[in-house]
Amino acid sequence: MPARHLNSSTGPQVHVNHSKDDVCGSGFKHLTPVHEALRITNDHLTKKVTDIEEHPLSEVLGRVVAADVVSPIDIPTFNRAAMDGYAVFSEDTQGASATSPVPLRLAGSIPIGITPNLRLHRGEALSVVTGGQMPEGSNAVAMIEYTRSSGTVVEISTEVHPNENVSRIGEDVTRGTVILKRGTRILPQDIGMLTSVGFDRIAVIRKPRVAILSTGNELQQESGVDSSKIPDVNRPVLINAVKEYGCESIDLGIVRDDYNLIRNKIKEGLDVGDVVLVTAGTSVGPGDMVPKVIDSLGSPGMLVHGVAMRPSMPVGLAVINSKLILSLPGYPVSAYLAFLEFFPTLVGQLLESNFLPRPRVKAKLNRRVAGILGSKTYVRVRVSETNDGLIADPVRTSGAGILSSLVQANGFIIVTERIEGYEENASVDIELFRPVERM
Amino acid sequence: MPARHLNSSTGPQVHVNHSKDDVCGSGFKHLTPVHEALRITNDHLTKKVTDIEEHPLSEVLGRVVAADVVSPIDIPTFNRAAMDGYAVFSEDTQGASATSPVPLRLAGSIPIGITPNLRLHRGEALSVVTGGQMPEGSNAVAMIEYTRSSGTVVEISTEVHPNENVSRIGEDVTRGTVILKRGTRILPQDIGMLTSVGFDRIAVIRKPRVAILSTGNELQQESGVDSSKIPDVNRPVLINAVKEYGCESIDLGIVRDDYNLIRNKIKEGLDVGDVVLVTAGTSVGPGDMVPKVIDSLGSPGMLVHGVAMRPSMPVGLAVINSKLILSLPGYPVSAYLAFLEFFPTLVGQLLESNFLPRPRVKAKLNRRVAGILGSKTYVRVRVSETNDGLIADPVRTSGAGILSSLVQANGFIIVTERIEGYEENASVDIELFRPVERM
Repeated sequence: MPARHLNSSTGPQVHVNHSKDDVCGSGFKHLTPVHEALRITNDHLTKKVTDIEEHPLSEVLGRVVAADVVSPIDIPTFNRAAMDGYAVFSEDTQGASATSPVPLRLAGSIPIGITPNLRLHRGEALSVVTGGQMPEGSNAVAMIEYTRSSGTVVEISTEVHPNENVSRIGEDVTRGTVILKRGTRILPQDIGMLTSVGFDRIAVIRKPRVAILSTGNELQQESGVDSSKIPDVNRPVLINAVKEYGCESIDLGIVRDDYNLIRNKIKEGLDVGDVVLVTAGTSVGPGDMVPKVIDSLGSPGMLVHGVAMRPSMPVGLAVINSKLILSLPGYPVSAYLAFLEFFPTLVGQLLESNFLPRPRVKAKLNRRVAGILGSKTYVRVRVSETNDGLIADPVRTSGAGILSSLVQANGFIIVTERIEGYEENASVDIELFRPVERM
Repeated sequence: MPARHLNSSTGPQVHVNHSKDDVCGSGFKHLTPVHEALRITNDHLTKKVTDIEEHPLSEVLGRVVAADVVSPIDIPTFNRAAMDGYAVFSEDTQGASATSPVPLRLAGSIPIGITPNLRLHRGEALSVVTGGQMPEGSNAVAMIEYTRSSGTVVEISTEVHPNENVSRIGEDVTRGTVILKRGTRILPQDIGMLTSVGFDRIAVIRKPRVAILSTGNELQQESGVDSSKIPDVNRPVLINAVKEYGCESIDLGIVRDDYNLIRNKIKEGLDVGDVVLVTAGTSVGPGDMVPKVIDSLGSPGMLVHGVAMRPSMPVGLAVINSKLILSLPGYPVSAYLAFLEFFPTLVGQLLESNFLPRPRVKAKLNRRVAGILGSKTYVRVRVSETNDGLIADPVRTSGAGILSSLVQANGFIIVTERIEGYEENASVDIELFRPVERM
């Protein structure tokens, strides 16, 4: 009964740490709060993913840096002009001003991209452009705005100090300093930085492998074959979802609700994956075999079964040989929200590299939403920009079996464990997963 | 002089719509505000990218839906049990209560995933599980919690109304309704939804093609070959950056500062791309040829040259035959920030599909930051979580030539045109591009 209270605004209250045998008909004796479930599970994920791969820079966007990267060179590698103007020896400009400019002999110009073959002598100026290498003998650039040239004479109308308008060797990056830390998720600018210090490859952590299994007699093996069965949507959703978190998926297919079939597949998943995602069979009914199967496969086994979140309450979290297993509810909305709640955080911890949070906006609720005291509730909303500002419209859904609420919505209101919900017209935080609509 | 005021906290004030010949030595007579630059450019991007490709669902994550998708079926496709319990005829439960339960004859059970071969007769109950197909003759499910079975008798201790605990045909998705709108960027749940209504392919918009060219005599063609030259970092950065926005890159390589070479390459870019990105040569010096080249290639040509933003002031925006050209400054920080300011919005408009904004957090500034009144200023900061909450530390950088400020930072403070900056200890909005650091 994975989705009894899904979208219910009047569901019974869940008492966390309740002493009754059953938490309000949920079938669970105890529901673990989300943060507690994360902590317990993470405590058992002691073996991180540390395998290293080396790849050309063209293939590492979004990957995780495997070890601190140290710059082998100084940047700039030579003193260079930071402005267009004239390379000078700063002492020669002493006392220069607009009313009393200092004349210097124009001894030539330094093109960009070429090592200067000219040396600056006292009393001379050499024309330079931004980025050009400073000639020997010079120690400053007089900006072109403060100069006037005529024939072979340049008049400098301001004093320039030593190193003024010069980018000095090692000013941006000093040889031997760490330019990228282990655990950094590689962005475009990081690839630029690696290029600029001369790397063309980098060592990254192997992508976590996530084995994905669907269980259920009601699932059709091929699309549209048996009208009494339904297509499996959990695998396509999860295979794509793990991609968004930089993981590789391994498709374990669909198995019927059979203890041995499920056991063999989860065992296979543990052999080939760092993480196993199993959908359905995670409740407490007689047909719900996944938790028992997991416990039969090693230790510590199931760590948490039944979480104080709606939907997705029957989710289970397990670790076997430091590999993570998420036993997700069968209903697609519940499965995907449980995935979003637990997978990014735990995979971030396996990689020792976090993910960016979803963007948030504040919006005004156009009707009341109810959470459940003691449970973390995900309410799907459609946020749109109106003349009155951002308005959040909770998506009305009747079914939990279908993803329409997550397809129609562009964000979540997360009603925390400590409150019962929000009144109409309340200003609420929305986590966006699609852009706000313009009305 | 693309980066004169980069990171300067004391830079001269820029007067937008100023009447002097030169805006404070920038070389520009007029700087266009960012929102104005976007509006003007978008007004000329009249031809959207509309080419359509069809792909299997396994390959469309992140792609843009090309046309409204209509469901060919109802979901559920049959009436199904929404709870575990007993399929009944609701009238048979009339008057049932805990003290006066109604006994029904248990006539069998309906397995999940199989079309029932049993028909319910008046006075009978058939055992069902969540998701199972409702047998003919039944119209409601009595939840197992309100029943007691013994042998061939089931006692129902509550009235159930017609359709209670039943997911009816078409309740989640009605045949003929739009399930995904044109312009939707495809998320994992959308792929699930398409699967559930029986699709295995979908029509998406072709990825925009972005041709990328670097110009400059100082750039080395191969890494580390000529010690007087520097590696080109703009192409690797931009090639990866366009990937993050779902675009395909076309590498036009590097050309020297030569009018005809640049012209031929931009022309090639316009032939093969929807967008052309050119770096360097966009200022107002004699060696800055890109704007002139662009104007020689067609109309309307350069629309904006010189934008009231820091860094990146010399950026140019152009349209030729409804193709977008961004003439980006040569300095990598300036080039990338100008890219981030303009590219996502304009490509979103070419595709008629927006991108999610970056996540924002509020943090306390650990020292003053100065913007420039009249300019939009990007200040790179490192945000960390401390015992005092989130603290934003502006990254101290001296150079604009290198990406270290964008590599060390995890967010931007955007100082708008209307203010001069923020004082130490001010609470400021940060746009994050990496996760917050834990101290």
